[in-house]
Amino acid sequence: MYRFSKATEELRTSEIRDLMSLAIRPDIITFAGGMPGNDLFPIAEIDKIYNSLPEKIKQQAFQYGPTPGYPPLLESLKEFLRKKGLPVDENKLLITTGSLQAINILAKIFVDPGDEIITEYPCFIGAISAFKSYGAKIIPVPIDEEGILTEPLKKEINKTIAPKFLYITPYFHNPAGIIYSEKRKEQLIELLRNTNLPLIEDDAYGDLYFHKEDSHRVQPIKALNPKGVSICYTGSFSKILGPGLRLGWMLVPEEIYVRAELCKQAFDACSPTFTQVIADEFIRSGAIYPYIERLRNEYLLRAQSMISELKKHLPQYVKWTEPRGGFYIWLILPEGTDATDILKEAIKKGAVLVTGKTFDPEAKKNNAIRLAFSNTTIEQIEKGIPIVADAIRKICG
Amino acid sequence: MYRFSKATEELRTSEIRDLMSLAIRPDIITFAGGMPGNDLFPIAEIDKIYNSLPEKIKQQAFQYGPTPGYPPLLESLKEFLRKKGLPVDENKLLITTGSLQAINILAKIFVDPGDEIITEYPCFIGAISAFKSYGAKIIPVPIDEEGILTEPLKKEINKTIAPKFLYITPYFHNPAGIIYSEKRKEQLIELLRNTNLPLIEDDAYGDLYFHKEDSHRVQPIKALNPKGVSICYTGSFSKILGPGLRLGWMLVPEEIYVRAELCKQAFDACSPTFTQVIADEFIRSGAIYPYIERLRNEYLLRAQSMISELKKHLPQYVKWTEPRGGFYIWLILPEGTDATDILKEAIKKGAVLVTGKTFDPEAKKNNAIRLAFSNTTIEQIEKGIPIVADAIRKICG
Repeated sequence: MYRFSKATEELRTSEIRDLMSLAIRPDIITFAGGMPGNDLFPIAEIDKIYNSLPEKIKQQAFQYGPTPGYPPLLESLKEFLRKKGLPVDENKLLITTGSLQAINILAKIFVDPGDEIITEYPCFIGAISAFKSYGAKIIPVPIDEEGILTEPLKKEINKTIAPKFLYITPYFHNPAGIIYSEKRKEQLIELLRNTNLPLIEDDAYGDLYFHKEDSHRVQPIKALNPKGVSICYTGSFSKILGPGLRLGWMLVPEEIYVRAELCKQAFDACSPTFTQVIADEFIRSGAIYPYIERLRNEYLLRAQSMISELKKHLPQYVKWTEPRGGFYIWLILPEGTDATDILKEAIKKGAVLVTGKTFDPEAKKNNAIRLAFSNTTIEQIEKGIPIVADAIRKICG
Repeated sequence: MYRFSKATEELRTSEIRDLMSLAIRPDIITFAGGMPGNDLFPIAEIDKIYNSLPEKIKQQAFQYGPTPGYPPLLESLKEFLRKKGLPVDENKLLITTGSLQAINILAKIFVDPGDEIITEYPCFIGAISAFKSYGAKIIPVPIDEEGILTEPLKKEINKTIAPKFLYITPYFHNPAGIIYSEKRKEQLIELLRNTNLPLIEDDAYGDLYFHKEDSHRVQPIKALNPKGVSICYTGSFSKILGPGLRLGWMLVPEEIYVRAELCKQAFDACSPTFTQVIADEFIRSGAIYPYIERLRNEYLLRAQSMISELKKHLPQYVKWTEPRGGFYIWLILPEGTDATDILKEAIKKGAVLVTGKTFDPEAKKNNAIRLAFSNTTIEQIEKGIPIVADAIRKICG
């Protein structure tokens, strides 16, 4: 009866939603959601910040703010990004309602229905939904433990009608957990140079490295400022403050920014000033730095626990890479496995996880599993991983 | 150099943005922004709410929430809407990041590039931007002091290829300030019945009536639940709590909801849980009701002051309607007037306003001015209206 738009005919719900409703059942151990630890939010720090805000600032917090972002936050966030070596002065910064909105806006300004774009396989589900919602045709290029594979990527780039952009998540990949090697980053830069193919570099997890010696490996490609490569860098407060604040950003060339800001204006006018005021003070007071340090230590402990349990319980034929940061471990199962069977089995015994096809733009390839260690206690990991391992054995033998 | 999408080629910046930057100059009296009074936000009430939240709820406030909305807020907001007579049980409620996002999502699910949609003339600028960002061809139908004109509307509805929807703001219209008469609402329902043309009923200001006897006139068309008319009802916390929280909603039929929720998921995953927790407690504690009462009284005083100043200073040839609620007064100037000249003149003397063409989907018709009385003191009104009146005389004679 309703005459809906063609682009939204493509929208499909994903399995991850039903998992979320399972995840709130207290008897279920959840390795499903890509969520920060509930017990790790900086509540005491933010209470202090909130209660020391002057009346004038609180009034601003309740009011509309400028579309590009609350001006003090733009300033303090620039300082935060400058410390990562990002070229904040040669680019423009836009605050968005979570980094998903940044990705969605970039999709909107580049994609007409039927346009091709390139992602990694596997790929962040939120980005897949955003791209599909504009009718993009997604070309997934596989990754290995060092990053996107350059040979198949080269073929796609050199097509007569080039795709509109390349989207990657190089630092503690969601879902694959890997970090790009220096060498792969260099190869990627060479491939992209002077191709007119913009790179969307999604860096939601880069701050969460476990080992000091990796601090240089998380340096964004955007920070290298490579000549002849146009980079849209996106980031988020979701993993270093709280996703409930719904704040992210994009750092992009001026020409892209102008159009992105117009889209943002039509989307939601501005991101929540209320939470922008809080995020600004969280950076400005310096509280964000020891907090990130605390998160690195906490997530390392959870990752170590999961790694140790997986080593103990997983069958040899499961392939996986030990994460050096972030939230995830990606288990690759024998070709032809349907991970949904494993999920069903695990749920019966009291654990949930996300199946591989969730992260396949074609929603087919299902011989993989994503485990998140971010929002579970070590006790839950010790109890839950044997359940997952048993379910794998039961299905795969 | 960049290969941008076709739909976003249409996006244009609006004059209102530059006015906003003027509006923060302390020497300028601003009748421009459609903003609540900075001095009227319920800061003390929210401080109390924030500081009495249990640790568990605060953790939820920092975390991702379900896409449809924070469950307790969905519940308390339903109660709030039920009191307006809205059919909350036969429809579905979706929390959005401001009501602009609700309007944007509805545009996305209905509009393919080139599709026609109908709005009022004049029309809320945010809705115009949202519709244009999907390549909609907007057909503006004029309003008078009782609402949209039914004769020209009838013609548009009966076209061979019917427009995709009709968008109206019946209660304290932005920018025109008027409220629909009972009779016009009935005529509209009869016109729409069984036409397959959904109605988007934008009700951002309905709570802000100045006179008790109007409390029934702000009853939404959606609350009448007319047979054979499909209504998407949108609302907002921006005018009854604070726009900085970025919270709005849509109450829509199930079939529309399913698609809207998928769009929302791809837009920003969920609205800020942090501010949803606050909004929930604001309703649940009952604090919202006396607060709205206080706003009605305060805005009435400001409106009365502006009405009295306009009566004193405006030339006779300016046509306008005394507002019975909301934020705005709409001055209609002699045919052919270019309100931008008046704006320039007023700025020179220290006052800003918004010109008529801002609210014209074709961005042309400019013989009108919008004055907002919501974020100015009575002293500023008394000082600023003579400036506006002088500027009008100077340009129009």
